[in-house]
Amino acid sequence: MDAKTFSSKDLLDTLFENGILFESGVDGLYGRSGVFEEVIERFERLVTRIGAPDKATRIHFPPGMGRATLEKSGYMKSFPQLAGCVHSFMGGEREHANLLGMMARGEDWTELQEATDITLTPAACYPLYPTVAARGPVPADGLLFELSSYCFRHEPSRDPARMQLFRMREFVHIGTGEQVRSFRESWLTRGKAMIEQLGLPCEVDLANDPFFGRGGKMMANNQRDQGLKFELLIPVTSAEKPTACLSFNYHQDHFGQTWGLHFADGEPCHSACVGFGLERVALALFSHHGADVAAWPASVRAVLWND
Amino acid sequence: MDAKTFSSKDLLDTLFENGILFESGVDGLYGRSGVFEEVIERFERLVTRIGAPDKATRIHFPPGMGRATLEKSGYMKSFPQLAGCVHSFMGGEREHANLLGMMARGEDWTELQEATDITLTPAACYPLYPTVAARGPVPADGLLFELSSYCFRHEPSRDPARMQLFRMREFVHIGTGEQVRSFRESWLTRGKAMIEQLGLPCEVDLANDPFFGRGGKMMANNQRDQGLKFELLIPVTSAEKPTACLSFNYHQDHFGQTWGLHFADGEPCHSACVGFGLERVALALFSHHGADVAAWPASVRAVLWND
Repeated sequence: MDAKTFSSKDLLDTLFENGILFESGVDGLYGRSGVFEEVIERFERLVTRIGAPDKATRIHFPPGMGRATLEKSGYMKSFPQLAGCVHSFMGGEREHANLLGMMARGEDWTELQEATDITLTPAACYPLYPTVAARGPVPADGLLFELSSYCFRHEPSRDPARMQLFRMREFVHIGTGEQVRSFRESWLTRGKAMIEQLGLPCEVDLANDPFFGRGGKMMANNQRDQGLKFELLIPVTSAEKPTACLSFNYHQDHFGQTWGLHFADGEPCHSACVGFGLERVALALFSHHGADVAAWPASVRAVLWND
Repeated sequence: MDAKTFSSKDLLDTLFENGILFESGVDGLYGRSGVFEEVIERFERLVTRIGAPDKATRIHFPPGMGRATLEKSGYMKSFPQLAGCVHSFMGGEREHANLLGMMARGEDWTELQEATDITLTPAACYPLYPTVAARGPVPADGLLFELSSYCFRHEPSRDPARMQLFRMREFVHIGTGEQVRSFRESWLTRGKAMIEQLGLPCEVDLANDPFFGRGGKMMANNQRDQGLKFELLIPVTSAEKPTACLSFNYHQDHFGQTWGLHFADGEPCHSACVGFGLERVALALFSHHGADVAAWPASVRAVLWND
C-alpha cells in the first residue's frame, strides 16, 4: 500500500487481503482480526494515559439504549436517517409458521416483527445524560466521565472509515459553560499532539453534524457559526476529504435542558465531549504505516507498545 | 447482601444502590460501572491465561451481523422470539415530518422504519462460520478461534442475569468430531476448575437450548439425548434455579453443513464451542462475594488481580 495515495477501495482491499478485516456481506460491517483489535487496545491505553490526570469516572453502556431515551434526546429530529431500532418477532406458533414460509419463498418476513423498547446507541455519550441526571444535582466542580461503546449509524458505504457499527471512546464533561469549554480546549491541544506522536498528518477544523433535510442546513450553519464542533481530520481514504477521527463538541446546555441536568441552585448544566473514533484511528494507522504492524515506524511502535 | 440467599430483586437493588449497575428504563438493559467493567476485564484475562496453551486465533465481530447470515443460519427456525433486526427510517422530508408528528402525538412511529441488512448477533460465534468458510478448506488439524462480542436476546426480565444485551466470550473449535469433542472435554474440566478458583459453588449439567414452540420440545429432547449441550451452573439469583454461566456445545456437523465448512477431501467439519457469559460471571462474583470488590476473599482477589 502506497502511503502517499489514498482510496477507499485500495485500503479495504488491502485490509481484506491481509486478513485484517473480514467481509460480512454487508457494506460497513466487518469482522476484525486480532491485530486490528490489538491496535485499538493499544490506542485506548494511550488515550487512558493522556487522560489520566483528569481523573475521569469510568462508566460503560451496551450498544443499545432505551427507545424512550432516543426519542427524548431529539435524535430523530436531527438524524432520523442514521438511527437504528431493534425489532423482534413476538408472535405465536401460527405466525412463526407464516414467517418461515415467507422466508422460504424469499418474501420480506421482517414486517412480522414489532419494535422492541431498544434502539442502537448512536453516540457513546447518549445514555450517559439521563443516567447522571437520575443521581441528582451536579456538584459545583462538574463531573467528568470516560466511556466507550459500540455505536450504530445506518449509512452503508464501501469507505472502510464509514462503518455502520464502530466503537467510540469519549470523555464527557458536565459542568458550567466555562468549565466544559476549557476541558474541550485542553483536548484540542492534547488530541492533536497525540495523533502527531503516532506519525499521522492531521489538522483540526471547524465542523458540523450531518443534520437531516433542508432544515438541517440551517442547523449545520448555526453550529458552525457558534463554533460548537471541531474535528481532527486525517487523510485515511482520501487526501481531499480527510476523515474525522476525533471530534470536540460543545453542547451548550442542550443536554442539560433536555435531561434536567442542573447544579444545586437549579442552574442548568452545560456539557462538552471529546470522541475518539477507534476504528478510524486504527484505519489511519494501517493506511499510513502499512498492513504489517511489526514494520511500523519505531517511534510509533514506541508510543503504542510502550509497556 | 447475604451470600446465603439469592433473589433477582435483592441482587439488582444492591447493584443499583452501590452504583455498580445503572437503570436505563428498560428491563435487562443497564449501564455498568468502572468496577463492574474491571471485574469483567480481570475475568477475561483469567480466561486468556487458561486458554493460552491452545494458541487460539483471535477474531472479533461487532454486535451486528448480516441479516442474510442470520437467515441462512437457521436461527429464525429455532429461536425467532430472541432475534433482533435493525430497522431504520429511509424516507424523505415529507415522511420525516409525518414521523415527528406521530412522535409528538405519542403514536407508534416505528412502523415508518424499514428493515436494514443488519441483525443483532445472537451468539458470539454466529458470524465466525461463514467467515472461516470463505477462506477455503479447513486444515486436518482443525482451527481454533477465540472471540468476544456483545450479543442480543429479546427476553426482557428483572433477573439481572438475563440481560438483553450482554457480552459472550467464546472459544470455537472447527475440526473432526473427535477433535472438537476432545476440545469440549478439556474445557468442561478447565472451566469448572476456573470457577472453583473464584470461590463460586458450581455444577456442570446436561442442558438444552430454549427452542421455540411445540416442535422445539422435541428438538430440546434430542439435544439432551445426544449430550450436545452442557452448562456450568452457579446460583446467582436463585438457589433452586442456578444460572448457566458457561456453556459447552457440540454442534456435530450442523454449522459445517450449513456453511460449507469442509476439509480438503470434502468431508464436512464438526464444531464445538465453549461460551463464557461475562456479565453472568461478574454477577455471580458480586452475588457471592459482595458489592465491595476490595473486600472479596483474598484467594479470589489473588486469582483475578494477579498481575
